[in-house]
Amino acid sequence: MSQVDTLIHARWLIPVEPDNTVLEHHALAIEDGRIVDILPSDEASAKYSAHTEKRLDSHALIPGLVNAHTHASMSLMRGMSDDLPLMEWLQDHIWPAEAKWVSPEFVHDGTEMAIAEMLKSGTTCFHEMYFFPDTVARVASQSGMRACVGIIVIDFPTAWASDIDEYFRKGIVVHDQFRNNSLISTSFAPHAPYTVSDEPLSRIATYAEELDIPIHIHVHEIEDEVTRAVAETGKRPLQRLQELGLVSPRLIAVHMTQLVDEEIEMMAESGGHVVHCPQSNLKLASGFSPVAKLMQAGVNVALGTDGAASNNDLDMFAEMQTAALLAKAVAGDATALPAAQALRMATLNGARALGLEQEIGSLEVGKAADITAVDLGQLSTQPVYHPISQLVYAAGREQVSDVWVAGRHLLKQGQLTSLDEASIITRASSWREKMSDFD
Amino acid sequence: MSQVDTLIHARWLIPVEPDNTVLEHHALAIEDGRIVDILPSDEASAKYSAHTEKRLDSHALIPGLVNAHTHASMSLMRGMSDDLPLMEWLQDHIWPAEAKWVSPEFVHDGTEMAIAEMLKSGTTCFHEMYFFPDTVARVASQSGMRACVGIIVIDFPTAWASDIDEYFRKGIVVHDQFRNNSLISTSFAPHAPYTVSDEPLSRIATYAEELDIPIHIHVHEIEDEVTRAVAETGKRPLQRLQELGLVSPRLIAVHMTQLVDEEIEMMAESGGHVVHCPQSNLKLASGFSPVAKLMQAGVNVALGTDGAASNNDLDMFAEMQTAALLAKAVAGDATALPAAQALRMATLNGARALGLEQEIGSLEVGKAADITAVDLGQLSTQPVYHPISQLVYAAGREQVSDVWVAGRHLLKQGQLTSLDEASIITRASSWREKMSDFD
Repeated sequence: MSQVDTLIHARWLIPVEPDNTVLEHHALAIEDGRIVDILPSDEASAKYSAHTEKRLDSHALIPGLVNAHTHASMSLMRGMSDDLPLMEWLQDHIWPAEAKWVSPEFVHDGTEMAIAEMLKSGTTCFHEMYFFPDTVARVASQSGMRACVGIIVIDFPTAWASDIDEYFRKGIVVHDQFRNNSLISTSFAPHAPYTVSDEPLSRIATYAEELDIPIHIHVHEIEDEVTRAVAETGKRPLQRLQELGLVSPRLIAVHMTQLVDEEIEMMAESGGHVVHCPQSNLKLASGFSPVAKLMQAGVNVALGTDGAASNNDLDMFAEMQTAALLAKAVAGDATALPAAQALRMATLNGARALGLEQEIGSLEVGKAADITAVDLGQLSTQPVYHPISQLVYAAGREQVSDVWVAGRHLLKQGQLTSLDEASIITRASSWREKMSDFD
Repeated sequence: MSQVDTLIHARWLIPVEPDNTVLEHHALAIEDGRIVDILPSDEASAKYSAHTEKRLDSHALIPGLVNAHTHASMSLMRGMSDDLPLMEWLQDHIWPAEAKWVSPEFVHDGTEMAIAEMLKSGTTCFHEMYFFPDTVARVASQSGMRACVGIIVIDFPTAWASDIDEYFRKGIVVHDQFRNNSLISTSFAPHAPYTVSDEPLSRIATYAEELDIPIHIHVHEIEDEVTRAVAETGKRPLQRLQELGLVSPRLIAVHMTQLVDEEIEMMAESGGHVVHCPQSNLKLASGFSPVAKLMQAGVNVALGTDGAASNNDLDMFAEMQTAALLAKAVAGDATALPAAQALRMATLNGARALGLEQEIGSLEVGKAADITAVDLGQLSTQPVYHPISQLVYAAGREQVSDVWVAGRHLLKQGQLTSLDEASIITRASSWREKMSDFD
């Protein structure tokens, strides 16, 4: 008998790679935070002696979900100002609130709340864009959560930095500080083409190459963004990004609801990635991203919730379902984006976008043990004809029972092990009291 | 002190009528299954002595949700055949499975499962269209659930009836049998314009008038339905229904994704109702219903999940959220269908469509005590700036803690009191085993 740290037996194991595969009555062995074996349960019991052994008789094990675009601490603004158009929402509500309230304490409390919500709903890695990335990285690392933290760059001064040089200086310190932390990676996060000018964008193209990290940016979120850019510069934003050297396999272009066929081709040829945020796009009436077309063209499309101020949750199960449903309606084809593809978007495609596909995104021997267990034995997913269908079209976040990140058991039968949920809720409530007076 | 059966104190009470109103720290008194008072909590404690008193300190009380279109027992086919277009899905999968399996036992077990799922997710009344409506009515009544049961009529023979006359004969027996049951009402449920010919449709127009009940029919679900009808009859289906006398305040037209402006006007003038089923429409790529336009024109729009075979759940919280998000994207206006309107669609508008607006759909003195309690104290709806926003955009079905139908406490801290959940799951599983062999 070989000794391993953890052996998890599950009714179904859905590795994502190979695609559309469901293993029944299999077990997964973890040693030093990595998956060291996947094999039939009975063989596993004969082969391994485990420090911890867990049997999940009505559950599916899937790779931990990868939320490829969010603004974690905006959770503190969840529902603060709904039912408004993007620009009014940003300019009259979100930005003034941020100018007044965003601080290391705000980001600390908001990020803890977001991580708690993400873990409870099966997400094990998030791709962040917000101020005080140093705090985000610290909170994620302390919670045992995996994160790719965006080094925010924006033309105007904020509580985090007063000018472009300071954004770069402080951001690169964050990168260097966490470069040996196995849970934390970084990306450059220029906010959007309309808020970052050419010079810093060019610098980002160069620095991203030198530091070997991705570039995380909102692109073509709404029609108005594109038409204004054309009026002011004669160019569509994506073309401008290309001319500045940003359209490459490093590019993680978020939203992309406004795309002509040539741009889809350009993305496919460049090897750049798209993050689809369907619920945010619907809520802000931003437009419909042509997801089926992008995928057909060979573009890697990942999935993100966006911030909880425009979603209004960080629930990747809801996001998978919305993505799968909406893609069919937009393509006018009920066979578009089938369940297995939606699950892949929410896992391996996210890992690829972040450059982490060797490490996470599928349940494979050698990868980190980032794992989510979903109880399909509950009424709402009964009966189970096809587990992947049930995961995408019927399962809810509340069916997530257990979550491991790098082998660490961060959610145990619905209970967080590294975060204090009651304290998080209390602090969220105090922020609301302060911010309501303002709003 | 007056004596009442039940007194429920809640952090928030959202009556739906008056519109967009949130009462804080209020209580609701129930006597003989009806709401007899709504008043501030402290006054309630001084005024009433209650047999049962409940304090819900982090909850919102809302009217029980009304699912205005479903096929309850299709829950047993949840996820059986996904990712297919409507006609292939119906003709090659659903209809053959139904031909082989649908029976009183199937409908009994499927309806129990559906009612269990609906109660657990806050729905207190459903509008049904399926075979064996006698069984549906009996199961609903036994479970304490409110239902409007469709008297199915369809041109082809099924296990329930062999010809049109038998559909009518057996259906009217169901109507008469349950006419004095306060939980059960009936509607005529001709399946769709393309499956029911002129003669039975005309008869339905007459009989519905005589029995004073609504007409429940799928209309303009997909483009192909309309273009085929035009090719075959020279008329769009809605026009044919109008000529046959079905477009009236009795009409409950389900789906309605294909509508020209004149049809929206016709619906508004007629006083007919629309049931929007956004998740089913997306999943089957049926098209986008112009919900904001319909409501602007003054049409009463209710909300339905459709059957769990095309959704794949009976979760009205998810449906409200999808309706609110999708309407904005379809209208190209982020202010379309705000949260309070979505909640109204899922409650009072459904009651109006079913002709039950004097009885249910809002928390008002004199109405039946059909009530849902939602715990907003959970992480996923924190912090609470605006309770209605949290209910529509962030709350999940799992936050429903308690449900009353006609004053009877059918869900008690998440536990069903009138149905045996374990037995329902076991039976669903046996149906899957039988039906998988077939599929």
